[in-house]
Amino acid sequence: MNGLKRYFPILEWGATYSKDTLTSDLVAAIIVTIMLIPQSLAYALLAGLPPEMGLYASIAPLFAYAIFGTSRALAVGPVAVVSLMTAAAVGNLALSGTAEYIAAAITLAFLSGLMLTLMGLLRLGFLANFLSHPVIAGFITASGILIAVSQLKHILGVPASGHTLVELLESLVTHLPETNPITAVIGVGTVAFLFWVRKGLKPLLLKAGLKPRMADIVAKAGPVAAVAVTTLLTWALGLADQGVRIVGSVPQGLPPLSLPSFNPDLWLQLAGPALLISVIGFVESVSVAQTLAAKRRQRIVPDQELVGLGTSNIAAALSGGYPVTGGFARSVVNFDAGAETPAAGAFTAVGILIAALLLTPLLYFLPNATLAATIIVAVLSLVDLSILKKTWGYAGADFAAVAATILLTLGLGVEVGVSTGVAVSIVLYLYKTSRPHIAEVGIVPGTQHFRNVLRHKVRTTPGVVTVRIDESLYFANARYLEDYLLDRVVADPSLRHVVLMCPAVNEIDMSALESLEAINLRFKDMGIKLHLSEVKGPVMDRLQRTHFLDELTGEVFLSQWDAIEALKQSPARAAE
Amino acid sequence: MNGLKRYFPILEWGATYSKDTLTSDLVAAIIVTIMLIPQSLAYALLAGLPPEMGLYASIAPLFAYAIFGTSRALAVGPVAVVSLMTAAAVGNLALSGTAEYIAAAITLAFLSGLMLTLMGLLRLGFLANFLSHPVIAGFITASGILIAVSQLKHILGVPASGHTLVELLESLVTHLPETNPITAVIGVGTVAFLFWVRKGLKPLLLKAGLKPRMADIVAKAGPVAAVAVTTLLTWALGLADQGVRIVGSVPQGLPPLSLPSFNPDLWLQLAGPALLISVIGFVESVSVAQTLAAKRRQRIVPDQELVGLGTSNIAAALSGGYPVTGGFARSVVNFDAGAETPAAGAFTAVGILIAALLLTPLLYFLPNATLAATIIVAVLSLVDLSILKKTWGYAGADFAAVAATILLTLGLGVEVGVSTGVAVSIVLYLYKTSRPHIAEVGIVPGTQHFRNVLRHKVRTTPGVVTVRIDESLYFANARYLEDYLLDRVVADPSLRHVVLMCPAVNEIDMSALESLEAINLRFKDMGIKLHLSEVKGPVMDRLQRTHFLDELTGEVFLSQWDAIEALKQSPARAAE
Repeated sequence: MNGLKRYFPILEWGATYSKDTLTSDLVAAIIVTIMLIPQSLAYALLAGLPPEMGLYASIAPLFAYAIFGTSRALAVGPVAVVSLMTAAAVGNLALSGTAEYIAAAITLAFLSGLMLTLMGLLRLGFLANFLSHPVIAGFITASGILIAVSQLKHILGVPASGHTLVELLESLVTHLPETNPITAVIGVGTVAFLFWVRKGLKPLLLKAGLKPRMADIVAKAGPVAAVAVTTLLTWALGLADQGVRIVGSVPQGLPPLSLPSFNPDLWLQLAGPALLISVIGFVESVSVAQTLAAKRRQRIVPDQELVGLGTSNIAAALSGGYPVTGGFARSVVNFDAGAETPAAGAFTAVGILIAALLLTPLLYFLPNATLAATIIVAVLSLVDLSILKKTWGYAGADFAAVAATILLTLGLGVEVGVSTGVAVSIVLYLYKTSRPHIAEVGIVPGTQHFRNVLRHKVRTTPGVVTVRIDESLYFANARYLEDYLLDRVVADPSLRHVVLMCPAVNEIDMSALESLEAINLRFKDMGIKLHLSEVKGPVMDRLQRTHFLDELTGEVFLSQWDAIEALKQSPARAAE
Repeated sequence: MNGLKRYFPILEWGATYSKDTLTSDLVAAIIVTIMLIPQSLAYALLAGLPPEMGLYASIAPLFAYAIFGTSRALAVGPVAVVSLMTAAAVGNLALSGTAEYIAAAITLAFLSGLMLTLMGLLRLGFLANFLSHPVIAGFITASGILIAVSQLKHILGVPASGHTLVELLESLVTHLPETNPITAVIGVGTVAFLFWVRKGLKPLLLKAGLKPRMADIVAKAGPVAAVAVTTLLTWALGLADQGVRIVGSVPQGLPPLSLPSFNPDLWLQLAGPALLISVIGFVESVSVAQTLAAKRRQRIVPDQELVGLGTSNIAAALSGGYPVTGGFARSVVNFDAGAETPAAGAFTAVGILIAALLLTPLLYFLPNATLAATIIVAVLSLVDLSILKKTWGYAGADFAAVAATILLTLGLGVEVGVSTGVAVSIVLYLYKTSRPHIAEVGIVPGTQHFRNVLRHKVRTTPGVVTVRIDESLYFANARYLEDYLLDRVVADPSLRHVVLMCPAVNEIDMSALESLEAINLRFKDMGIKLHLSEVKGPVMDRLQRTHFLDELTGEVFLSQWDAIEALKQSPARAAE
């Protein structure tokens, strides 16, 4: 993939586009469109935005991704976690529903789009790697809980607000007496129905003879049915007059042209959240895209994915939308429904466009409670506390990172949560590498193998100690190594030779080199020779550019076996 | 070292204190006292504090270190870099010379003392390891330049100020016409004299028959001679009336009892600088202490050193001093003069105490220019730009860190400089580990050794690829590994087996485990088996606590040789 095709993947797949592919893509697009209409409205509600912005965010961005994206099956649009993060970021700056709030959301999409595109062009996709899997899992789980709780107000028909679990629950409890009973019936009923569709409907459909894949897709249409039924009921029974909150009039027409704000203060305030949204959105999106691509032995290009998502967000900002990314559920549906190229996304966009042009009047009587119910059911499937148990059994550092992420996301909000999770995992990694595993080794009798003296029955040579360091040597552990070796030799005055065995040393940086020089000098003062063995090629190349090897009192041995063979004959020399 | 002796090293060496040791310690103390008197005054001047605070900072802290410190030869007191950092930290908050300025300096010592003591008790000494050697070297060099330039105003007798190189030079140039010629003669003359003492005096003394060690010590007394001569001249010729700034009246008496401020706002403002001063001071101090201890096959305990320095700073805060740490030059003098225990430090404190009680009236006519000259000559020996060349030839990451540290320290001040240096070195380390060296290996014919196919003439097995990863697998490189392996297998449809050779993998964290699981699953979809070889004991222990090994499509081989022996017989199976 080179030249223009590197930056415009559409040229790659567009060149071989056939009628068969068209049919597959069209079928997939119709199914995804049906799924995406209620989702778009619901996620806009979650972000505190007018419902039509959800539709707008599902049109232009899909065209942009079809041109610039590399995944054949990724379906882009508003998603739950990014909508929650939008609400948190913009909610700090303006009151929900105001013109400033909407302008800030559009600016957020624009900023995030710029950042993603830039990161892609500068090939900074690796930055996303610093979000460890447990941190992502913990963050998604905590976000799912927060989102579900934040939607309870719509289910009960009460005003409530807050960005943390405690705030939300306090606010809900305060307003509980104001619950609107009809709204609650609709809300709880829809939640129950949607859970039944997920768990109970598929077996029925399978019994009725549908193929498993088709049964899956029909089950995904549950929210559409719920929307249709509750809207009809609300209209027929005049429930809006009895306090049931409804979506109301949604503007009918093409997405508007919109421009982000260029107020530098606003950019400064939104820069942090925009970066987090970009990275989180990218990670979520690229994980799905990679999983799906692997199933067909296709490849995605992560840095170009950044450009794809970046241009999608810029498109969202210019057409009245808000931050978007690749969604997990809808991409899987798209893939299962047979989408073969990003054209399926463009066709989906056409579907949503038709909905925005023609269907919005039908949504007038749609209860907010129904949308909230679809959100709750969707996000609860993301909640998976088993990551806590899994990491607990596997590694303390991972557990600490995931626990910090979950607790702080719930307790202090999404931005603090994910930032702290990243910080904790980096600090613990650095801490671990700063205290590397160091084993004293001896030879396994009858072999040329050297193993840990504490784990194996091995033979050592008097006056010689061999130390194997299981980590690259760099500034954070250079002093630890010094301390360890000096402690070791001070404790044993009979020592004459110390061998550093380096098969796991992938790098020796300047600090470590200076520590080795210091160790060498101090050993010299004590009459001890320092040797190295099994130094890797690239590490040796670098050492040869310094004076260290000239100053080294001992030798560099190709293998540990050579080292011991040479040193065990030298007690006479050592006693000079 | 256990129990009480762990926390009170004085119990260790005090128990065997003899008359011989007493004599050695007393001799060392007299020599260090003579050296320390002008230094204390000069560094107080550098910190923007009254000269007597330098003396006070050289009394109580030395007693505290004698009780809690573990180094036998470290000499504690005001040092150049910490004085500069004090000036930078306190100068942001108050005008030099005011009561608020003095109170802030005392509070800074107290805070730094608390932090050091706490870090020691919590055994957080390893935090200092994140200051890499090049960052320290760059920081010391840049500080030396800043300090020297900051003292030029005293040499010229002009008012000038600033915390960065540009500010200082601008201010100096503006005030240049106001230069006091007599002050300039004293200043430049003293600088020239002190440089001559350093370079020219020692050969003369050696010719005159002095032993090298004694010649060294006499040369170190140069500043005292300069102080005596210029003070006498200024008094005799009445130079103070001709615009030569003098130290003036220094209070005579015991150090005052003082208390830090407990204003929470001030603590918040000083917390960052106090942490930096603590860490920098600790690193400087512990490097000297370790070097000297190693020469006598003694050991220091870094975490207890934190307590020693911490209590020294608290003592400074309670007795009218300011932040202190172990000084390089004076510790070497102390060691060379024969100090055997920390008691030498206590005797030095008595010497300075006597000076504070009796000698201060003699300092009335001491010109500031003389003190500035002693500072300039002392710090210019710290300036060593060769670290730039050294790191340039050795490693790009080290060069970047040291260049950033020097430029930002000079351009934006000491705090920004050292913080950025640390950040740059950590980020570059993480970046490197996030893109590990991965080599495809084949067997060296006639051996059981496997080497890089690009570097060596090796034989590979058709349908099998072996990949050696030269890094621990963790979140930052988990996705890189996924990308690498998937790209590799997509490019070669004939592949049936992938072996991951892990001799340099010291850890597999949860993220990497999940990546391996994902790779395993995707390979399964493609009909490729994933194998591992040469997995280390601790890594294997951890993998065995998961389901990964059950789900692995291939096997785990003890050695790469076993792996190839097994797989080369399996084309029939692979073709099933």
